[in-house]
Amino acid sequence: MSKLIIVGDRLDFKFGTIRDAFFKKDKDFIIDLARRQIHAGAKYLNIRVGPYKEDAGVMAWVVKKVQEELDNVPLFLNSDNAEVIEAGLKVYDRTNEKPVVNSADAGARKDFINLAADYEAKVVCVCMKDEVPMNESERISYCSSMLTQGIGLGLNPNDMLFDPVTVAIVEEQERLIEVLKTIDEMHKLKLHSICGISNISIGMPHEVKPFIESAFLNMAMYNGLDSAILNPFLPLLMGNIFAGETVLNDRLFTSQEFVKVYDEIRKS
Amino acid sequence: MSKLIIVGDRLDFKFGTIRDAFFKKDKDFIIDLARRQIHAGAKYLNIRVGPYKEDAGVMAWVVKKVQEELDNVPLFLNSDNAEVIEAGLKVYDRTNEKPVVNSADAGARKDFINLAADYEAKVVCVCMKDEVPMNESERISYCSSMLTQGIGLGLNPNDMLFDPVTVAIVEEQERLIEVLKTIDEMHKLKLHSICGISNISIGMPHEVKPFIESAFLNMAMYNGLDSAILNPFLPLLMGNIFAGETVLNDRLFTSQEFVKVYDEIRKS
Repeated sequence: MSKLIIVGDRLDFKFGTIRDAFFKKDKDFIIDLARRQIHAGAKYLNIRVGPYKEDAGVMAWVVKKVQEELDNVPLFLNSDNAEVIEAGLKVYDRTNEKPVVNSADAGARKDFINLAADYEAKVVCVCMKDEVPMNESERISYCSSMLTQGIGLGLNPNDMLFDPVTVAIVEEQERLIEVLKTIDEMHKLKLHSICGISNISIGMPHEVKPFIESAFLNMAMYNGLDSAILNPFLPLLMGNIFAGETVLNDRLFTSQEFVKVYDEIRKS
Repeated sequence: MSKLIIVGDRLDFKFGTIRDAFFKKDKDFIIDLARRQIHAGAKYLNIRVGPYKEDAGVMAWVVKKVQEELDNVPLFLNSDNAEVIEAGLKVYDRTNEKPVVNSADAGARKDFINLAADYEAKVVCVCMKDEVPMNESERISYCSSMLTQGIGLGLNPNDMLFDPVTVAIVEEQERLIEVLKTIDEMHKLKLHSICGISNISIGMPHEVKPFIESAFLNMAMYNGLDSAILNPFLPLLMGNIFAGETVLNDRLFTSQEFVKVYDEIRKS
């Protein structure tokens, strides 16, 4: 096992304030949010912009500015439109790490794997076609078809990050166990896994979110989850990640991180 | 799976204030502490007294008073001395549930299994002999020898709660994974498992304890842990237990418990 790779999810156009900052090119605001995520423990940042033609310019501008100001921090380039992602790939600086195309799937977004191969990028492969998969074996079958496609295109399997498709508790509580089992299966198959964590607690009060996300994440970490896209500003969640790494012997038991986290909870 | 059975661990003579209250027969103090543990979510209470002759009287008195005042709450009777436990068994009221002898092991305390059989009680069976077991298979072998002994004495395996022996992170961080794997193994063998949770964080600052205990516990719950002896006054720990049960589909996603827990964190 090894420490969980944390991908900060705050630079997302679904938040009104972020969408405004993207279009106003409010550099100070964006850099501050990026820097604070790194400070909170994120190793990568996810940049999520819209699917429209004008979003390509936004993507390129954000990628360039964030990397220039923050020591070429590695980024996930996230959009529903491959051309928008490509605009980011074109300006991305690989000094520290390859860019990550976010995300392909086994259906309409199959071609995002080709895009990753063309640019020698990493790629998030979401194990679904048109709908949330019915069970673990359907998830693994999509995983397998995307792996075959990627290998055929010359991608290294280590550059493919498989997402088992998390579900929202308020909608499909009984199906989260399947997701955990899929992560275990991926780990046994020596595939790299990644999860979007904030989906799980969609629609729940903000006090509840970090508990639910932490419980899922600690179980997923036990099952070998490699990386997670999450909100690094939830001290309770971050504390539980540090604790999970300690229990799994991936982090020394030095208590400084936790005490800092506890202070943040009190302040919040 | 099913909800975790929580055993409150606060009535323990290792705490100076509790030892004093036991010997002064400070009924109000003890009943208050017992009641607050039940209110916080404990289904059973562990009563831990010393190993000396005079402790037998203390055990009998505490068992009687706590059950009289609190609707015959089921109890774990915990001492290093079988005669002290027996004094509790003699006065125990079984209206709600059998008493639980805490604890037998596969070495010097083998006879505690006989005591449980004699009184038709449940029994915690700690999977060790003289030292902390070296690995998972040593744990399971002790488990198996105690199971054989218990069945031979007419105990129902459902009345035997197997403790995989938790270790303190500050002493043996790298060995906690074995404990988690043992719980998984016990679950596959359809044995009931129980863990002492507060051992894990011994020697850590109090801000850190609930994070470490929660992370371990959520992983253990995923592996099928049935019950845990713990401090129910740690809101962060209780919140993570509720969340773990929700993720595992053993508790509905109603958020009231969590919001209450979050309020307690703020107050603390």
